[in-house]
Amino acid sequence: MSSIDLEGLLQAIRTVSGLEREWVGLHEPIFQGNEWEYVKECLDTRWVSSVGKFVDRFEIELAQYTGTQRAIAVVNGTAALHICLQLVGIQANDEVLIPTMTFIATANAVAYCNAIPHFVDSEEKTLGLDPKKLENYLDRICDLRPEGCFNRDTGRRIKAIIPVHTFGHPVDLDELVKVCDRFKLELIEDAAESLGSFYKGRHTGNWGRVSALSFNGNKIMTTGGGGAIVTNDKDLASLAKHITTTAKVSHPWAFNHDRIGYNYRLPNLNAALGCAQLEQMPEFLAKKRAISQKYHQVFNQVQGVSFFLEPEFSRSNYWLNTILIDRTEVEQRDKILERTNSQGVMTRPVWTLMHKLTMFENCPKMDLSVAEDLEKRAINIPSSVFLAEDDES
Amino acid sequence: MSSIDLEGLLQAIRTVSGLEREWVGLHEPIFQGNEWEYVKECLDTRWVSSVGKFVDRFEIELAQYTGTQRAIAVVNGTAALHICLQLVGIQANDEVLIPTMTFIATANAVAYCNAIPHFVDSEEKTLGLDPKKLENYLDRICDLRPEGCFNRDTGRRIKAIIPVHTFGHPVDLDELVKVCDRFKLELIEDAAESLGSFYKGRHTGNWGRVSALSFNGNKIMTTGGGGAIVTNDKDLASLAKHITTTAKVSHPWAFNHDRIGYNYRLPNLNAALGCAQLEQMPEFLAKKRAISQKYHQVFNQVQGVSFFLEPEFSRSNYWLNTILIDRTEVEQRDKILERTNSQGVMTRPVWTLMHKLTMFENCPKMDLSVAEDLEKRAINIPSSVFLAEDDES
Ligand SMILES: Cc1ncc(COP(=O)(O)O)c(C=O)c1O
Ligand SMILES: Cc1ncc(COP(=O)(O)O)c(C=O)c1O
Repeated sequence: MSSIDLEGLLQAIRTVSGLEREWVGLHEPIFQGNEWEYVKECLDTRWVSSVGKFVDRFEIELAQYTGTQRAIAVVNGTAALHICLQLVGIQANDEVLIPTMTFIATANAVAYCNAIPHFVDSEEKTLGLDPKKLENYLDRICDLRPEGCFNRDTGRRIKAIIPVHTFGHPVDLDELVKVCDRFKLELIEDAAESLGSFYKGRHTGNWGRVSALSFNGNKIMTTGGGGAIVTNDKDLASLAKHITTTAKVSHPWAFNHDRIGYNYRLPNLNAALGCAQLEQMPEFLAKKRAISQKYHQVFNQVQGVSFFLEPEFSRSNYWLNTILIDRTEVEQRDKILERTNSQGVMTRPVWTLMHKLTMFENCPKMDLSVAEDLEKRAINIPSSVFLAEDDES
Repeated sequence: MSSIDLEGLLQAIRTVSGLEREWVGLHEPIFQGNEWEYVKECLDTRWVSSVGKFVDRFEIELAQYTGTQRAIAVVNGTAALHICLQLVGIQANDEVLIPTMTFIATANAVAYCNAIPHFVDSEEKTLGLDPKKLENYLDRICDLRPEGCFNRDTGRRIKAIIPVHTFGHPVDLDELVKVCDRFKLELIEDAAESLGSFYKGRHTGNWGRVSALSFNGNKIMTTGGGGAIVTNDKDLASLAKHITTTAKVSHPWAFNHDRIGYNYRLPNLNAALGCAQLEQMPEFLAKKRAISQKYHQVFNQVQGVSFFLEPEFSRSNYWLNTILIDRTEVEQRDKILERTNSQGVMTRPVWTLMHKLTMFENCPKMDLSVAEDLEKRAINIPSSVFLAEDDES
């Protein structure tokens, strides 16, 4: 007999996400600042495309907000990851360590470079990758040579690692940096979900040589579709801008390009939205925190599940609030998902683990038992900023 | 002694592009329709991202407008070409025939597939590739086998061809289709520049198995940044939609992906702009035609250059108006470019030919003498729709 009361659980979510709402999504945007003013300015000035003052401004303000030296706005977070990998010198057939528990974009970006994802386990404390377990694993499988770290089994170079700050919660970056230093791994943070999340007082995205952000419609703030590369390395920043603008060599009229490049620049129209949203981040974060605190409270009364709290070393944006089902109750997961979704309360499990997908099933991997456990237990619940409004109908 | 009168030429451009304008660009957008209304609706309804009614509507209306069965909106024309190549089954190491005289995106898209661009010459009649010259060339270098067409020299399969409708002028599609049939080549039209251009009464993009459009800020209509795949093959259309939405398998909550996919969907915000712009295409086309007619007239009086006219089998959108310098005067090209640009009248030569760029210089190519000749002679002149307004300041 299950100890989870489905109706009680549904009621708990509704207490926070709005008792009167007929339908509540997982994460929807809200536009109550200067969005319309800025977007209108784009149309009025006819600067809607890849050059324009909002792109410049958005890049400057993103760098300020994240405390990085430079930000390069791009069409989305996937494009940002793709370019990050090129910036750190990923070559065809290199292996790149990524958590098996992540959104598909992390693995796809590796595949775009003709490189091979190598799947790493997570830890329950952060929902992100486990530096200690990783170190032990690399100790067992790697050859450390002057040219880098090699997988003894496949013979391939392991060149980089992409930790993901899952649902906004930072991984243990200090511990991870130690592992990267020891094994000569380039560090790229997938900070797509962690805008507004801080690790030991500093914004995520500052530990990677380059890091990726996303402003997709479901993120804490949005540009419609969009993303950014942030970095403290100004040379890499210039290179990022070059590669994302078709590698065109600057000239008043001639069209020369000096390498394979991409049309990855964020349009000014989308950057205008981004500027307005970024101004509201302090307010968004306060509201997100209020929502997570309410959830924490109500879930204290619900048997069989626990509300996931930020790791003690971090201040998280609580992008997607998460509950973990007790290990004894994992067979209830799909019932919870079915019941809530059928009642108009959108919930979802974590992504199908990457190593289980057809196109990645033959990629190298370590023991992934913690991720497998979390996959059975984690459920995301409605988390939109506007759920914190007092009198929204 | 040159017979080109630089001041006379500058004056000729100014007569059409506005005598009082201090600065005139090559092609700038104009927003005088429902742009505001639709964009505001996006913000008000909070549907700004990759799902939304304007995306659906834009796709339906694009298909109607181009007379194709289906259109799939994507982040830009480069992404559209990339996916088109995947849709026709391009594999690593295949060769893809493309004109050497094109924008970098055509060649880059081939490179993204780890395939090899094989450069083809142009003809002066269309500024696009020359089907007859191509056929003779393929006759000489190819082995036709049951599995396809093979380059005898490199041993690689020649799998597809991407004609470009240069500056909006359609290539001779009927002749090209014959060559494709004979040599079993998949046809992809790069119609990035030819929205509103018709070949023998039918819209460009209908001859390719799949074709690519662009709505970049400099195109005849814009979405800020954007593009589309159009096709008459409904199965390929469904596949295109699948691949461009991360190949996610539809499910109320589970995240499964069945192949390497892309985040290439056009945001609803940009599609809203697109819907408003598309409504104005008839007006845009009429104005573009009026501009090109005026240019044609004034350039009749200018020695040493001629105004490029649409091929007789087509009705062109005259996206970028073009003059050709007489062969005896080609050393004047840079002087014309310098003088006009320094006077605030933006002009530019064609793109540096692809086979001259470092990253493509070792790719296979045929004799490219016509393109080399056109590169020395062609200059684009200001062509924005609003140049046709009577009383614009
Ligand atoms: C962990 C992670 N990485 C990468 C991305 C890719 O970002 P985008 O959707 O903007 O391409 C996302 C968001 O969708 C994400 O959640
Ligand atoms: C011939 C041609 N192909 C492809 C593209 C790529 O389109 P986009 O700039 O939207 O990526 C363009 C336009 O820039 C183009 O002119």
